[in-house]
Amino acid sequence: MSFSEREFISRIRAQSSSVSGGLVTGIGDDCAVFNCIENDQEGKLGLVTTDALVDSIHFDLSWHPAKLLGRKSLSVNISDIAAMGGKPLYALLTVGFPGKDMSGLADDFMAGFYEVLGEHKMALIGGDTVRSKDFFISVTVIGEVAREHIVYRSCAKEGEDIWVSGFLGQAAAGLELCRRGMFKDGENKKIIAAHLDPNPQVALGQVLAESGLVSAMMDVSDGVATDLSHICAESSVGAEIEEDLVPLSSEISETAIRLQCSPLDWALRGGEDYQLLFTAPASNSENMKSLVLQKLGREIFRIGRIVKGKGVQLCRFGEAREVSYGGFDHFAPGP
Amino acid sequence: MSFSEREFISRIRAQSSSVSGGLVTGIGDDCAVFNCIENDQEGKLGLVTTDALVDSIHFDLSWHPAKLLGRKSLSVNISDIAAMGGKPLYALLTVGFPGKDMSGLADDFMAGFYEVLGEHKMALIGGDTVRSKDFFISVTVIGEVAREHIVYRSCAKEGEDIWVSGFLGQAAAGLELCRRGMFKDGENKKIIAAHLDPNPQVALGQVLAESGLVSAMMDVSDGVATDLSHICAESSVGAEIEEDLVPLSSEISETAIRLQCSPLDWALRGGEDYQLLFTAPASNSENMKSLVLQKLGREIFRIGRIVKGKGVQLCRFGEAREVSYGGFDHFAPGP
Repeated sequence: MSFSEREFISRIRAQSSSVSGGLVTGIGDDCAVFNCIENDQEGKLGLVTTDALVDSIHFDLSWHPAKLLGRKSLSVNISDIAAMGGKPLYALLTVGFPGKDMSGLADDFMAGFYEVLGEHKMALIGGDTVRSKDFFISVTVIGEVAREHIVYRSCAKEGEDIWVSGFLGQAAAGLELCRRGMFKDGENKKIIAAHLDPNPQVALGQVLAESGLVSAMMDVSDGVATDLSHICAESSVGAEIEEDLVPLSSEISETAIRLQCSPLDWALRGGEDYQLLFTAPASNSENMKSLVLQKLGREIFRIGRIVKGKGVQLCRFGEAREVSYGGFDHFAPGP
Repeated sequence: MSFSEREFISRIRAQSSSVSGGLVTGIGDDCAVFNCIENDQEGKLGLVTTDALVDSIHFDLSWHPAKLLGRKSLSVNISDIAAMGGKPLYALLTVGFPGKDMSGLADDFMAGFYEVLGEHKMALIGGDTVRSKDFFISVTVIGEVAREHIVYRSCAKEGEDIWVSGFLGQAAAGLELCRRGMFKDGENKKIIAAHLDPNPQVALGQVLAESGLVSAMMDVSDGVATDLSHICAESSVGAEIEEDLVPLSSEISETAIRLQCSPLDWALRGGEDYQLLFTAPASNSENMKSLVLQKLGREIFRIGRIVKGKGVQLCRFGEAREVSYGGFDHFAPGP
């Protein structure tokens, strides 16, 4: 019997369907959502999310400074809170340390972790440290969101536009540069930082959620092709990404030429960009764009639209090819 | 520079002292406690705790059936909720799986995990699965407790009695039997179960907390000598354990003779009993004993008293010796 993570999670989810009283939503979205107080019809909802990072699987200490790893381990969890339109409040941190002395690393790691806590006015409220063969990190973040503002993955509707909050593929390009040892020359700082120290989109998530203009939202952690597949599955719709609309930075295009890689591959399948991916009725486009520009001084990018059916198609010159869940099995390299 | 878990946690705690608005207490008790809703003066408090278990460090699959490991990984977290007088509500489960096929193990593990979820009417609301060299489990549990009933570690007062909720050393004796391969003969079932499948004291924790009769409470996870040291440190008091009062089962006494071990050592330093350890004014003793007998049909055991000063002393025939934090450095074997 084969065993994949997705299968494992879907089995867990199937068994988790009978939820207890105060729970609003459990597995299947970026965060679990629960009523803080029974019969509270008005107030705030609690949000909780957890993510683990394992040495040599999710990070490589030969190029990842421990301080930035501390930042990233928290940021990726905060990103899940941002994806619901929420405000992160509390973190729990579990670290597995190998037997050898890692106090220097631990200090640097914690310095980065505390920096991000401070940036979001969060508190570390618990955790555990254990001995292990692997160095691993497991972080849980608890947050809150107003009941009337929360945005789920499951509410995308046919005909809506699909948006992302920034350039895609940056983190994947940064990872590739690090893998090739090209992280010391001071060039490509932005791209490398996208991999080492991603920036969770909390302010934007809140602006979008509070605006009431967006229907579905999540963060881009596994690559937009995969993450959009989740929105489609949860919302029972399909999606078309227009290849020409995928936002690529000039840095990523230059880097792709230099490394002979496909920037589109990075953008669709790379993952770890921690941008927000969201859908909205076409009639909201102008309002949404000007709101984000006015409140945060930034752009957002339309990349396609929600359609009838299921799965994610990449469209170019009127032709479409399936890229659901990253399309690892049958996705030809981009141009 | 040396690096110990306690030092690491105390450093984290020192840095965590500037907490954000809604937090009632962070690191330093069994659970972190936070206000669910700002300015909520009356209602429930949220509780959250996390614990990790690593293969070959915290468990040994050669004698620990995966189903019971699934039960235990959740139970030890529930025990922290019980120790505040709380009700466990939600769990998050992160599992690190080695590359090899572990689907059979994963199914058994989850079956046990779900059993305990069901026993406490809890919901699994999130988690993560990752690849790792070690098989590891990181569980977070969220619960709630009425604001007026919560019991902390930090409120033990001089002159109070110290109580435990059941036999001590059972889990340590069970572990020793397993280590020696003596877990298959069908004997010592209770002791072995205490190690493999501990029973968190949720009902008792709630009865005690709601009674208002207890001052300080925690669960016995690291051995009563260590755990009582935490209560003393948090409450700025000392403690005396009377050796003759330490509750030992007849099974453990027989097992100790058979294995030529000290049952007192198991009881004080063994850990993982997940009984409750609590303090109460002497004037509450009779009320508390009869309440527990009436509500739950069980006994509780007085083992000593809170004194001025600091640290934990073990008293026998009028002589006292220091056993703070298990006294690993200078604790002579018991009789």
